[in-house]
Amino acid sequence: MIEDDRILLSHGGGGEKMHRLIEDVFARGFSNPTLSSFEDASVFSIENGSLAFTTDSYTVKPLFFSGGDIGKLAVCGTVNDLAMRGAKPLYLSASFIIEEGLELAILTKIVDSMAETLKSAGVKIISGDTKVVEKGCADGLFITTTGVGVVKEGIDISNRNARAGDRVIVSGPVGDHGVAVLLAREEFRLRAEISSDCAPLNGLVEQMLKYARNLHTLRDPTRGGVAAVLNEIARSSEVGIILEESEIPIREEVRGVSEMLGLDPLYIPNEGMLVCVCSEETTAALVRLMRGHKYSHMATAVGRVVASPKGVWLSTAIGGTRPLLMPEDEQLPRIC
Amino acid sequence: MIEDDRILLSHGGGGEKMHRLIEDVFARGFSNPTLSSFEDASVFSIENGSLAFTTDSYTVKPLFFSGGDIGKLAVCGTVNDLAMRGAKPLYLSASFIIEEGLELAILTKIVDSMAETLKSAGVKIISGDTKVVEKGCADGLFITTTGVGVVKEGIDISNRNARAGDRVIVSGPVGDHGVAVLLAREEFRLRAEISSDCAPLNGLVEQMLKYARNLHTLRDPTRGGVAAVLNEIARSSEVGIILEESEIPIREEVRGVSEMLGLDPLYIPNEGMLVCVCSEETTAALVRLMRGHKYSHMATAVGRVVASPKGVWLSTAIGGTRPLLMPEDEQLPRIC
Repeated sequence: MIEDDRILLSHGGGGEKMHRLIEDVFARGFSNPTLSSFEDASVFSIENGSLAFTTDSYTVKPLFFSGGDIGKLAVCGTVNDLAMRGAKPLYLSASFIIEEGLELAILTKIVDSMAETLKSAGVKIISGDTKVVEKGCADGLFITTTGVGVVKEGIDISNRNARAGDRVIVSGPVGDHGVAVLLAREEFRLRAEISSDCAPLNGLVEQMLKYARNLHTLRDPTRGGVAAVLNEIARSSEVGIILEESEIPIREEVRGVSEMLGLDPLYIPNEGMLVCVCSEETTAALVRLMRGHKYSHMATAVGRVVASPKGVWLSTAIGGTRPLLMPEDEQLPRIC
Repeated sequence: MIEDDRILLSHGGGGEKMHRLIEDVFARGFSNPTLSSFEDASVFSIENGSLAFTTDSYTVKPLFFSGGDIGKLAVCGTVNDLAMRGAKPLYLSASFIIEEGLELAILTKIVDSMAETLKSAGVKIISGDTKVVEKGCADGLFITTTGVGVVKEGIDISNRNARAGDRVIVSGPVGDHGVAVLLAREEFRLRAEISSDCAPLNGLVEQMLKYARNLHTLRDPTRGGVAAVLNEIARSSEVGIILEESEIPIREEVRGVSEMLGLDPLYIPNEGMLVCVCSEETTAALVRLMRGHKYSHMATAVGRVVASPKGVWLSTAIGGTRPLLMPEDEQLPRIC
């Protein structure tokens, strides 16, 4: 039993209080045979092969928003980063930096949300850490998750693999996550029915790879949005990418809120959406398959890869073409 | 070139500024073929076998102290946690949560220190993340590292493996790290010549395992110190541990500062010291071997494992015996 209803510095101290927090809150949510709470590291077995490895810190503000919370985000974000290399995510670690005074009920709700998301993604947390810092030295809660997944032989999905002639598919509408988080902030007195798209995409990617093992690039456009990942792909593959503005799925509410705030949805982070580059022949059937999956029923081919001009270009609805540049400044801090 | 001399929110934004920070600061320090800065995950190959996996967040205050800094600590702490399961550490991830306004020179110095420590440990960072939060929402810099290592077949080192009749060895003096960090805090106007023991112990463990493959337990006593890890071992192995107070190596300066501050060195964190439980027969030669290693020349057998009484006991210099309890409250926040 935890006798306090708020997190104290002693919950991070390595003693009885921390043990009880681990047992009552974390082990309850994350329990599995490979998670060894009181060992220095967890050990698991693996067959010959390649592993994917990725890490992200989550500092989203506020901790809860429509469609998700920092915990769901911390699981989905890292699961998705593994899936974007074609890996099957296996295990995560989760490290919590907690501001002294955080309500235990909030932490528990977040851990429960993580547990539910882990279950739906088929992934386990096998290592964790908790640090508590003094009031005013952190903003509520930061979570860092790191993931390990296996990459089957023959799978080679990378920023470097886009080729002239390829098509670019987005799995869903752009900007939902970022706008949902902005709306959850009290300083914006806006109301709109937008939920974060936050979701684990490993199941979707598994289905896509069953259909087409030779996908060239997969990316989940989080910070910097679709614009940033397309620029990264264009640079790494030394190609150009031309997007058809009229094809890009954007919810009316996202468009409306973005306009009011002076934001471009192509630069707004998503957390349950992916960009896929694949060969022309694969595209139509892949889009059909994706539309049958719950997380990508609005999948659309939105662009094509060209040898030149290099860079990313938006072919606008009114017939012009303008460069879609790499974002320079942070337009949306603390969205993920 | 980074044109600003302080970290801005835009350095965490996923755009050009972040790319330049990664290239100029992080890639310069961490560059290696497996580190793919702009992919969602890094991929590496592995042979059949067992892997160890561990994570820790580092929130030490201040960022620099005698004998180390938060970066060296973040590498050593996670490398050591892998080594404590008998694993050979291979790869780390590093995630940085930076308070807006941190001087770039400070970040660079910390990254350089990490790079140097990685080199001396023979370990690579292959995945990273940077988040910048607004001024006042974090305390300078937090680093979370996660590590992967391989465990050779037949190695089984765990909290659960201590057996009655075993001996307990410490590799060096207790309390150096915690006292060095306390002395670096301006609020204590104490002066003493104490450096943190912060060091990567994987090389030492490799040598120890070459000599004695069947070590039972290895732990690095960080938070909660030697008292906490011995209590964890006693509980997990369902044994008792009796420490000989007069045998425990403690530097005079550490003893002096601890007394002034009302602290017990057995509860003070260490970052380059390990506790080893092994069979009686192995002990004397193992201690001799350890004394030949630069990080453990004060290695000493300090206790023994008994079937009963359970728990951890201190056999004092004046002939009495008292329980060495699991710490209840946090006596030293932000030491690691």
